[in-house]
Amino acid sequence: MDPRVSIITLAVADVPRSHRFYVDGLGWPATYADGDVVFVQVGPGLLLALWGSADLAADMGVAPAPAGGTTVALAHNVASAREVSQVVAELVTAGGEVVKPVQEAAFGGTHAYVADPDGHVWEIAHNPGWSVAGDGIVTLQAPPQP
Amino acid sequence: MDPRVSIITLAVADVPRSHRFYVDGLGWPATYADGDVVFVQVGPGLLLALWGSADLAADMGVAPAPAGGTTVALAHNVASAREVSQVVAELVTAGGEVVKPVQEAAFGGTHAYVADPDGHVWEIAHNPGWSVAGDGIVTLQAPPQP
Repeated sequence: MDPRVSIITLAVADVPRSHRFYVDGLGWPATYADGDVVFVQVGPGLLLALWGSADLAADMGVAPAPAGGTTVALAHNVASAREVSQVVAELVTAGGEVVKPVQEAAFGGTHAYVADPDGHVWEIAHNPGWSVAGDGIVTLQAPPQP
Repeated sequence: MDPRVSIITLAVADVPRSHRFYVDGLGWPATYADGDVVFVQVGPGLLLALWGSADLAADMGVAPAPAGGTTVALAHNVASAREVSQVVAELVTAGGEVVKPVQEAAFGGTHAYVADPDGHVWEIAHNPGWSVAGDGIVTLQAPPQP
């Protein structure tokens, strides 16, 4: 099994609300959207899917779980501490809720945590030790993030 | 805010156990690993992080949530139905638990769901309507996955 993620699916309570947050609010172009599911490209070969909790659970054949919680976090890294604050402000304008305000991070940079309308948590981070080469290979200098 | 995910962090109960599953079991090379956190590259500019539930919750400043559940799924797309079965077998050998056996999927291909040791769920899928161009742009033909 190659180390590869193709789709990150977030279970959501209200797909149109998620469309308003991610597509209308943040301005992320939808690769595909209907009333039941929204796909947004969030990296090379990588889609974010916003899909109803009941639909995802039914597709898995399990009982729906309550949304949100802290078992997964999605980090969005940016190029400067100032940009962390700018992105957090954008998320709040779109309807996000600050979980942890912008502050110094243990990894030596700046970060904040913001929840989407379903409680899925994004970390907005500037990590001076994070770099991505032209071929997409990531280098992390200690102390690592997270 | 650009549509970009840099790190997918999975909260785990036992970081060495996660290392055994993902690095030793699946053979995914670690970008960084110590006793507290493991990073694996899972796409261009994209890392998977395996981090203790208590550490992630403390970093967010929230109470730890129980691990697992169905609020997030990570899809791993492969090139054929046969490869779906092969990858599911690899996951089971590494210690994964089948949530939904290999079968036809509503999107017109073949898929299965397998949980990692913490209950984080991977969908292994062959979707004939999924394609990734040389520049990383994904095209989905209806009916979409998921």
